[in-house]
Amino acid sequence: MNSFGKIFKVQIFGESHGNCVGVVIDGVTAGLPLNEEDFLSDLVRRQGGIQKGTTPRKEIDVPIFKSGIFKDKATGTPLTILFENNNIQSEVYDKQRSIPRPGHVDFTANKKFGGYEDYRGGGHFSARLTTGLVAAGVVAKKMMPEININAVVVEIAGERDLEKGIQKAINEKDTVGGIIECKVLGLPIGLGEPYFDSLESLLAHILFSIPAIKGVEFGSGFNAAKMFGSEHNDAIENKEGKTSSNFAGGIVGGLSNGNELVFRIAVKPASSTPKEQESLNWETNTMEKFSIQGRHDLCVALRAPVIVEAVTAIVLADCMLLEQKIQRVL
Amino acid sequence: MNSFGKIFKVQIFGESHGNCVGVVIDGVTAGLPLNEEDFLSDLVRRQGGIQKGTTPRKEIDVPIFKSGIFKDKATGTPLTILFENNNIQSEVYDKQRSIPRPGHVDFTANKKFGGYEDYRGGGHFSARLTTGLVAAGVVAKKMMPEININAVVVEIAGERDLEKGIQKAINEKDTVGGIIECKVLGLPIGLGEPYFDSLESLLAHILFSIPAIKGVEFGSGFNAAKMFGSEHNDAIENKEGKTSSNFAGGIVGGLSNGNELVFRIAVKPASSTPKEQESLNWETNTMEKFSIQGRHDLCVALRAPVIVEAVTAIVLADCMLLEQKIQRVL
Amino acid sequence: MNSFGKIFKVQIFGESHGNCVGVVIDGVTAGLPLNEEDFLSDLVRRQGGIQKGTTPRKEIDVPIFKSGIFKDKATGTPLTILFENNNIQSEVYDKQRSIPRPGHVDFTANKKFGGYEDYRGGGHFSARLTTGLVAAGVVAKKMMPEININAVVVEIAGERDLEKGIQKAINEKDTVGGIIECKVLGLPIGLGEPYFDSLESLLAHILFSIPAIKGVEFGSGFNAAKMFGSEHNDAIENKEGKTSSNFAGGIVGGLSNGNELVFRIAVKPASSTPKEQESLNWETNTMEKFSIQGRHDLCVALRAPVIVEAVTAIVLADCMLLEQKIQRVL
Amino acid sequence: MNSFGKIFKVQIFGESHGNCVGVVIDGVTAGLPLNEEDFLSDLVRRQGGIQKGTTPRKEIDVPIFKSGIFKDKATGTPLTILFENNNIQSEVYDKQRSIPRPGHVDFTANKKFGGYEDYRGGGHFSARLTTGLVAAGVVAKKMMPEININAVVVEIAGERDLEKGIQKAINEKDTVGGIIECKVLGLPIGLGEPYFDSLESLLAHILFSIPAIKGVEFGSGFNAAKMFGSEHNDAIENKEGKTSSNFAGGIVGGLSNGNELVFRIAVKPASSTPKEQESLNWETNTMEKFSIQGRHDLCVALRAPVIVEAVTAIVLADCMLLEQKIQRVL
Repeated sequence: MNSFGKIFKVQIFGESHGNCVGVVIDGVTAGLPLNEEDFLSDLVRRQGGIQKGTTPRKEIDVPIFKSGIFKDKATGTPLTILFENNNIQSEVYDKQRSIPRPGHVDFTANKKFGGYEDYRGGGHFSARLTTGLVAAGVVAKKMMPEININAVVVEIAGERDLEKGIQKAINEKDTVGGIIECKVLGLPIGLGEPYFDSLESLLAHILFSIPAIKGVEFGSGFNAAKMFGSEHNDAIENKEGKTSSNFAGGIVGGLSNGNELVFRIAVKPASSTPKEQESLNWETNTMEKFSIQGRHDLCVALRAPVIVEAVTAIVLADCMLLEQKIQRVL
Repeated sequence: MNSFGKIFKVQIFGESHGNCVGVVIDGVTAGLPLNEEDFLSDLVRRQGGIQKGTTPRKEIDVPIFKSGIFKDKATGTPLTILFENNNIQSEVYDKQRSIPRPGHVDFTANKKFGGYEDYRGGGHFSARLTTGLVAAGVVAKKMMPEININAVVVEIAGERDLEKGIQKAINEKDTVGGIIECKVLGLPIGLGEPYFDSLESLLAHILFSIPAIKGVEFGSGFNAAKMFGSEHNDAIENKEGKTSSNFAGGIVGGLSNGNELVFRIAVKPASSTPKEQESLNWETNTMEKFSIQGRHDLCVALRAPVIVEAVTAIVLADCMLLEQKIQRVL
Repeated sequence: MNSFGKIFKVQIFGESHGNCVGVVIDGVTAGLPLNEEDFLSDLVRRQGGIQKGTTPRKEIDVPIFKSGIFKDKATGTPLTILFENNNIQSEVYDKQRSIPRPGHVDFTANKKFGGYEDYRGGGHFSARLTTGLVAAGVVAKKMMPEININAVVVEIAGERDLEKGIQKAINEKDTVGGIIECKVLGLPIGLGEPYFDSLESLLAHILFSIPAIKGVEFGSGFNAAKMFGSEHNDAIENKEGKTSSNFAGGIVGGLSNGNELVFRIAVKPASSTPKEQESLNWETNTMEKFSIQGRHDLCVALRAPVIVEAVTAIVLADCMLLEQKIQRVL
Repeated sequence: MNSFGKIFKVQIFGESHGNCVGVVIDGVTAGLPLNEEDFLSDLVRRQGGIQKGTTPRKEIDVPIFKSGIFKDKATGTPLTILFENNNIQSEVYDKQRSIPRPGHVDFTANKKFGGYEDYRGGGHFSARLTTGLVAAGVVAKKMMPEININAVVVEIAGERDLEKGIQKAINEKDTVGGIIECKVLGLPIGLGEPYFDSLESLLAHILFSIPAIKGVEFGSGFNAAKMFGSEHNDAIENKEGKTSSNFAGGIVGGLSNGNELVFRIAVKPASSTPKEQESLNWETNTMEKFSIQGRHDLCVALRAPVIVEAVTAIVLADCMLLEQKIQRVL
């Protein structure tokens, strides 16, 4: 079940506190040059650490290529990349085991997997798994040099001034949410399929795979519900499909329309807040107060843009292959 | 590409002004009693016509069973249902052909399918195709009698008072958008899979297949971006996973958590507004003013709840089968 | 589950004695000219009736286009074709119901679908369903005019002289099996994917969907097991990959190698033999003698070549699209 | 593309002379005990080395668990297993590069992947990749303790006396083919789906993924083509579906019928024969004589039974999950 895509296909695996996390990427353009360097800047963005409000980490992730690369180029067969897990402190999770953390997968994973799940740090559900997504995104982006994908945080804790938003978290000793906006330039017209594989469907599918996402909207989004049709319609102005406005967000009828693709996602405040919380202790069957220990982000939204870009690139690479806009061999 | 699901699988087909629209449904529980009556109330809800603000229609859709039913029960093999298209007036679309309607698929479909698309009334992209979805939803709902799915319009044209919202449209002789909220009771814990097949991913995927949807949010949704973690966390209160609040909207870590599933979708105002608009005439290459003719909805959101329920049921039936919570034979 | 393919995708439905059988075909090249005439010769081949040894039928199948065709051309969206079932006599199956016919699906379908299956004439499992496959094959063949697919019966009842083979069946008042050979010219090099989607895998998958198939072999086939490596290796003779011999049957490493694709399939004798047989009566729990009534083929292999061609074309069209050797729009 | 299965899903990766080969297995029963020991005997069978006629190897494969196992039990999330490649001598492949070896993938892979393929030892196409299949088979077998899968070589070089067959190879200094028979006991009735996912289709699909397979037949197989219907029909004898004979090979109408599943596969003689051969040198464009160097099997069929068992188990585990005959959590 943990795979996505038709031709450009991604399978992720691993656990937060296991040996490693990783990804198998199928459908990579044969001949695509790929080396460690290509991955580092996006991996660093994911790790944060330079930004206020993100977890300080001691080491950066380095991709370990296990298959699919030969003489520094993609072979076109499955490309496997591992990321080792280092600097792990798991003891706290054993202690915390009987108190499922609110907002975390502890309770639901326990029920679904009958208690056999790796519960340390969220196990397979951890955002640590997005490392593989970012790596796949790097490959996908390189396959489509003419397409520019750019995601940025546009709001934190309800503030457009991001510094102010983070300061709220620091002041309150609490975590805060945020909004990310992603814009894509250079798309051909016609990506996506009618109905079930509409471009919005594919993007929303993979965006909601990212932990902590609570909403996805395209173009006018929720604001569309307050508009009149005559306002919302984007008049077509030339034969390339350029529109006067872009309330559609670059997708009409489920298909890219040649204008800028625009969407926003809502990121909830991290559940691992420094504040004291209450939850059931399922062994004693009493409510218990506890605090989350360890390094945690005040605002996970800050680290999400590169993940949003990555999953967007994964979807677009698959659509581009399906629509024969990129070739399977360089 | 026009199919969805792993075990409970739906394939839709047809065109707005062609012979019919329809659906093939695979994975139906063998032995499930099914007759025409079962479908009528949801089909009528989809057609509207009694409500202010929806298109008046002369006839109601009647399901024509073509396969998969024997002695009024599902056989468990593909169930095919057709809906005839009657009362069609296509001439206007030939006249309008050279002026792609803003907000409609005319332009993008033309580019994607090289001019071979059936352009009459949106062709295969028409909301007429949702008839098949509603039919599949009826089957899915019947397969899960213990689950209650309920979607309602909660806002029109920015107004919580729905009458007021529709009156805005009538006054302005324009179309208006709205917001739909869907709530589901009776879900077991653990539906959905980690990452790519998270319950939010599956639901958002198929929700964005519905025409005119611009946004999807679960639980706290976009509001989460303004909250603190300590506020947002839903404390777990008992061993069944009941939480004190429900900002999660019933899904944690991509898995149902046993609480009410809650999500909202934003519906844009219909692009076919009675107001005069402007668009490119791609034959003369000049901008031209025009008005949309014919019967159209002032607020398509009014007819969407039953479609939202249907696609929700489609996803849930598939998850329930995958999780072995419903059997393949009655 | 009843669908096949990644881009060129086929879903069949219907029952032998229901209202109709049919097919939904997705991924058809937009703009492909298609009319009733295109289908007739292959449909007639499937029905037999002119050949000694096949069931005499009163009417020929006529395709009824329900979606995906506009102005006599494929739109590129799902193409639905129905075939009505006429001239049906179902009473015999009710009488026969308590005695599952040996070699037929009566017993296994009953167990799998809990008794809810349409048991008349094999229901959904009937070879009648191959009508939809043949129709999809016609479309696939038209999408690849440069590829020539040709299947013929090469052996009946162990006889290379086919007349002799059929005469055996007539003399014995029994049914007989046969072998079909399929050859394909004009394939590009490189169709198929390593391992799970090897060209042999895809072809064998769909070939074994055809009722009554007991074996599939490529090139040297079972004879390979008796050969030496030095004999079996096909020496490559020029840069286009032409080989001196063709024991590989046109596929090496799961990929087409540019030589003729050659495979053979074994067709069992039809289970509906005119001879008296014995089987359990599951109501009385005693063994009972009975004879199959009605029109039946003495050698179903005679009608299978066009079905073999059709499913081969379905696989190849999908591979050609995946490999970008044919375009999605004409 | 390199993945197989709906619920129990397998993705393989790696290259013969790269860092490793491996497999990601999704849909494993949560709680299934798994340790290194479980894998060793099947891995040793795959490596041969004790048998006359197979390549002598210095070290045995040891599974390295990378994800999906916690406290020696499967978590139910993706299970990743690596096998390191040691003892590799790649130089010969660089020298041989300009002369594509007959019967090997050298030529077709080069064309498909534009020369970017890892050509050393067959790269991703190497039978080395079946290590991952065997590992997945071990897991699948453990998930179905009530099912017994047993594959054996029944013929080598046309000889039922296997010693005699191998001696032929030794005498001729050439490689030889063989036939493997696989029998499965303990299957429930009703595995498989009508048409495209018939049990034969699924099995044949994955069997033809194994390198060197030229034919697959079920039950009577190719012999069916020579039989009469009255002979071939297996009379049903009791309510559990026991049949008097088993020409069907345990599958009727694409569904398991509760009798023993029986199928045979033809394995070609290894293309890497010690004998001198001739092929095109594509640099000089002349035919050239050459000999394959290194350790190679005289009869690859000897090592294939465990692979045949493994892929059979993979298919059956998926069918058992789909049919809800095994649970997703122990």
